[in-house]
Formats: sequence, C-alpha cells, structure tokens
Amino acid sequence: MSLIENLKWRHAVKAYNPSEKVSQENIDKIVEAARLAPTSSGLQPFKILVVENQDLKDQLSEGALNPECMREASHIIIFAAWDRYTAERIDKVYDFTTDERELPRGRFGSYTDKLKSIYLEEEAEKNFAHTARQTYIALGLALAQAAELKVDSTPVEGFDNAVIDKVLELEKHGLRSVSLMYVGVSDPSRDWIAPMKKVRVPKEEFVLEYK
Amino acid sequence: MSLIENLKWRHAVKAYNPSEKVSQENIDKIVEAARLAPTSSGLQPFKILVVENQDLKDQLSEGALNPECMREASHIIIFAAWDRYTAERIDKVYDFTTDERELPRGRFGSYTDKLKSIYLEEEAEKNFAHTARQTYIALGLALAQAAELKVDSTPVEGFDNAVIDKVLELEKHGLRSVSLMYVGVSDPSRDWIAPMKKVRVPKEEFVLEYK
Repeated sequence: MSLIENLKWRHAVKAYNPSEKVSQENIDKIVEAARLAPTSSGLQPFKILVVENQDLKDQLSEGALNPECMREASHIIIFAAWDRYTAERIDKVYDFTTDERELPRGRFGSYTDKLKSIYLEEEAEKNFAHTARQTYIALGLALAQAAELKVDSTPVEGFDNAVIDKVLELEKHGLRSVSLMYVGVSDPSRDWIAPMKKVRVPKEEFVLEYK
Repeated sequence: MSLIENLKWRHAVKAYNPSEKVSQENIDKIVEAARLAPTSSGLQPFKILVVENQDLKDQLSEGALNPECMREASHIIIFAAWDRYTAERIDKVYDFTTDERELPRGRFGSYTDKLKSIYLEEEAEKNFAHTARQTYIALGLALAQAAELKVDSTPVEGFDNAVIDKVLELEKHGLRSVSLMYVGVSDPSRDWIAPMKKVRVPKEEFVLEYK
C-alpha cells in the first residue's frame, strides 16, 4: 500500500489488548524508520528508547494521562532529545560521517564551526527547543512505518515529562523526553475511536498555492 | 518500495535543474501526505503554502542560506504554524470533526474546554513552540511521500523567517513560517552530496531497549 493509504488506515489507538505483543522484527523496522529520519544538519540530536518491560511500563504510566492504555500497550517508544548541543556531540557526528565516507576528518570543519558558533552561544533551553523539533520528523516516520506493517500505534504528548525522565534516568544520558509512541494490538471492544471517521482539515483550507 | 527503502533513496538535494518541473499530480500527493499527518489533539495547527511562481521564489530566496537552490527548485513548500491557539480556532476544528462524524456539536466539549484552559493561559510564544513542533510530523511525511514518488527534495531550516513571513504575508493568516521543503529534479552535475554515502548514527547508539 502507498504511504497515503497507510496514513488513512492508521488512527490513534485508545485501548490495547494486553495479551498481544508486537514482534521484535516489526519493532526493529519502526526503529529503523526513525533512525533514517532527516534532521537539521544531519545531527540526529535524539535517541529513542523502547520499553517492553512491564514493570518499567507500570512506572512510566504514573506520568501518563492514559495510564491504562500505556500499561496495556506492547511497547512504549520514547523520543528523547539532546538537552543541549555541545562541541563534542557535533564533532562526534561529523567525525563518524567523514570516516564512513572515507573523507579526512575536518572536511566539514568550516560548517561545524558555524554550527558551534550558533548553538553553543544559545542557552540550553533554546538548543532543546531545536533538538525537540527534530524528534517529530522521526515520530511521523515511525508512525508511518507502524502503519505500513499494520501495527497499531498511538502518538502521545500528554504526559508528565519529569516522571518519564526520572524513571528512564534520561538526565544521565544528556536527554529529555519529548513525545511517546505506544505500539500494540488494538482492543476493538474498548478502542472507541476506531469506528469513527478520520477527519482532517479540507485540502482547500490546508494549502495555499501560488502558481 | 517500502518506506525504509524510500528513506534510504532520498537525500537533501543541493542543486536543482531549473528547467525541470514537478507535476501537479505529485505536488498534490505530497500535500495530501502532510494533510493526513497526525497532530496533537487533532488540531492540525498549521497550513502549507506551495510556491511555484518564479517571481515569488526569487523574493523568498533573499531569506535563504542557499538562494540559488531555492530559485532553481520546481516548487517551494512552506510549513507555517498558527501564531497561537484561540478558542475560535479550536472550536472550528472540533465543530467540523463532529459534523463530519454526524455527532452533536459539543460532543467533545469537556476535552476542548481542557485544551482551552491549558493553551489560552499560555503566552503566544509558548503556543507557537507547540504548534511549530507539529509541523515537523507533516514535514517528515511530506519528505517520505516525495521519496515514494522519486521526487527530489530538500528539507530546509536555515533561512530568515522574517523574509518568508513578509513575502507571503503570513501574519495576515495568523501564521509564522517554521520550515521549508524544496522539490524539483536534482542537477547531478552540481548536487555534490548525491554521490556520497548516506550516514546515520548506528542503531546500537540510536536506540536503548528495555526488555
């Protein structure tokens, strides 16, 4: 099926069947779509955490607006962005890139100097506003990948970041949680939104064309 | 091809052939993927603007870090987010949704009241930080759709928002520019990144798994 057909198929699942699990193969594909996401200057300033462990899911659910949905999903994927840019982090990405391309390290030095002159002058909070935005590109692609596999999912923003960050010790990793994605198998008896029509802003309101 | 194969195929094009155009049919599919993007509470707090007009592209390019690339692309897509949430904007979305679902208006009233109690208390800048994030989900899906169609594209953040907002009179629409996407046909003689290996953070660094 095409991307458009997959996007029409998916919906934000409201209740999962706790006895059904998503295969590791499908989780790996969802992770891979997120990993391939384009990001600003190719920095990929985030990681994703995949939680299948029930005890951890239970702890995380204390920060959720929909704790039952979170506890009963097969896996919880957390998108967590760099808490700030650092010279070391930028250099690590570009050193790896030049190595992989068999180019001399420093080949993009004038570009990374420019990035550092912008980002390292900013406060951490402004850096994080930028790194957090990048995670949404990956979130969109991960949701599309789940739909391609006919894996049910829920994108989630409504939660207490402090709980997630604490349970997963994100500060230790230099990360802060941004969004979540639940994956699993919908429970049709409780997933009340499933039978409802998908509604989007009509095209004529959504797009302005200048020909 | 699968989403993962499409993501591996694409790259951020650095130079376009100015004499080649992307078909309206393909533009429509890219717009449709963006329109189907999931967003927080389904509010879709953004529009996209599609600029094919050369005079407008030339004006916009004055705000670009890569003006030649922008002028020579077939179309420029601008992702522009609501400058803030308002009760009227929230109600409009939910009234349309209930009408489309043949439900009584106000069916989700307690939910929209909650959204209003959160968003309308915040300053416009905090609202915009949230609406801007949502556009990146659509940007990711639009890039994936272009790749599915083998349409070349470039995601762009490095530009002067003030120029874009002024040329397109975004304030009048209650919008602020967030990101751009150029689409067109790559010029292989000048698209220097095309032959380079795509590099991403290795999976073992990108993902943390809790089984």
